[in-house]
Amino acid sequence: MPIHMIDEIPVIKVRAMECADTTDELAAEEPLEIRLEHGPDFHREVKNISVTMRTPGNDAELAVGFLFTEGIIRSVSEVLFARHNFACNENRQNVIQVSLRSNIVPNLNTADRNFYTTSSCGVCGKSSINSIRTVNQYDGADDNNCVSATTLYDMPEQLHEQQEIFAQTGGLHASALFSSYGELLLVREDVGRHNALDKLIGAALNEDLLPLNDKVLLLSGRASFELVQKAAMAGINIIAAIGAPSTLAVQLAEEFDITLCGFLRGHRFNIYTSPHRIVLT
Amino acid sequence: MPIHMIDEIPVIKVRAMECADTTDELAAEEPLEIRLEHGPDFHREVKNISVTMRTPGNDAELAVGFLFTEGIIRSVSEVLFARHNFACNENRQNVIQVSLRSNIVPNLNTADRNFYTTSSCGVCGKSSINSIRTVNQYDGADDNNCVSATTLYDMPEQLHEQQEIFAQTGGLHASALFSSYGELLLVREDVGRHNALDKLIGAALNEDLLPLNDKVLLLSGRASFELVQKAAMAGINIIAAIGAPSTLAVQLAEEFDITLCGFLRGHRFNIYTSPHRIVLT
Repeated sequence: MPIHMIDEIPVIKVRAMECADTTDELAAEEPLEIRLEHGPDFHREVKNISVTMRTPGNDAELAVGFLFTEGIIRSVSEVLFARHNFACNENRQNVIQVSLRSNIVPNLNTADRNFYTTSSCGVCGKSSINSIRTVNQYDGADDNNCVSATTLYDMPEQLHEQQEIFAQTGGLHASALFSSYGELLLVREDVGRHNALDKLIGAALNEDLLPLNDKVLLLSGRASFELVQKAAMAGINIIAAIGAPSTLAVQLAEEFDITLCGFLRGHRFNIYTSPHRIVLT
Repeated sequence: MPIHMIDEIPVIKVRAMECADTTDELAAEEPLEIRLEHGPDFHREVKNISVTMRTPGNDAELAVGFLFTEGIIRSVSEVLFARHNFACNENRQNVIQVSLRSNIVPNLNTADRNFYTTSSCGVCGKSSINSIRTVNQYDGADDNNCVSATTLYDMPEQLHEQQEIFAQTGGLHASALFSSYGELLLVREDVGRHNALDKLIGAALNEDLLPLNDKVLLLSGRASFELVQKAAMAGINIIAAIGAPSTLAVQLAEEFDITLCGFLRGHRFNIYTSPHRIVLT
């Protein structure tokens, strides 16, 4: 099964009361099982960490980015390799195994439960935020990062030009990393918005760019708690979303001194938290 | 903590190079832990099934809908009650416990793993689809359901008028149930699109409407595999999405003879599967 991000399928297009047989290009969606191999050389263990529905492509970035943003690994240097698992002919592109160096002990506490429930108190927004603090390496790091409104206004158009698969299918979320001067550095797309961000952070880890505290993250859609959590884990301190944020996304951004902007459209946007990094000139 | 679907928060609105302090209404997002209590009277067990980030409100519908669409329960008659758990003052609205009748044995095989990996073969789109077939009660049911293009064209506007929270916050997904004559029966909204559909199906279960094989499901955004899976579990056989479907969503719809339409905007849409239920007159 070759990796393919787009499939062409037959479709009937209806316009008013007319219809026509044609074909349409859709974003591919397939399950990906992420496995983690770890332990000393004489006793390696393999654990199934997660199954996510994703758009095939950049699977190694997705797996490593996911393990990092979930706090299971702390650095890409802990990874020996990440590769598709060929145990089964049927689905060899849908299982990826990340193997850690033999001296590395992954933090599997966060994997067994999850960020939302790691507090002994139970589940609430506050405990969800606190549990992220315990595994975040970049919480409260000093930075001089800032971005001008003019630079922000240009970003959606730059992203749009790069979003090739979205342009064809209308069906993908994107995460993009910009320099604070507005240079587009990385774009990743996926049917799942969390996967697009994990792929982006996985790619940034591979290029040794972390912490991303001199960059700007652009999200093609809404900013949920989960996306701000992943950004915080990568040291991102400026997030601009084309869509709306949720209340818990704003609370988390506030706790971590992340500048969170929403509704970035045309020459307007809203600043929800830490406005000191936005320059209006 | 009162239930609230919207929070008003301070915001700086930037327009070109001007900015103004004001307030904004955002969609609320909070974790919800779903617990299942089951077993004979002399030995009740409580199991934590899932934690989802959701917009507060309709939590009992969400929990029951989730348990049903995941195949863990087969009918609302199996449920004794669903209520918030008051064990902890901090988050009493964020834990909901569904208690089953003492003679009911829930199907927890699907809960421990999940639909994507229940096949012994591993993970692939085909095995994901097959695993749904094993728990679906309405697979292949005969129906005479159909809907006219004219009726479909009116649905997004009707949904939009009902989507009160989206109108205020711009941040919610919606699922809506229509009769095949275009009467809007139910709408549910959530920050998570899967939650919106679980709430809708939970509400339909409460009203004893299943199987929904004489109705039309309208999705405010894209149609992913997961949404078509949940619809299939409720016997839905016509799905119209305002956004794009994914490839696996189309495959699943095809396997279950579900009519899947996408890009329903203005007087146009695409039919991906089972076009016999769409009437052009």
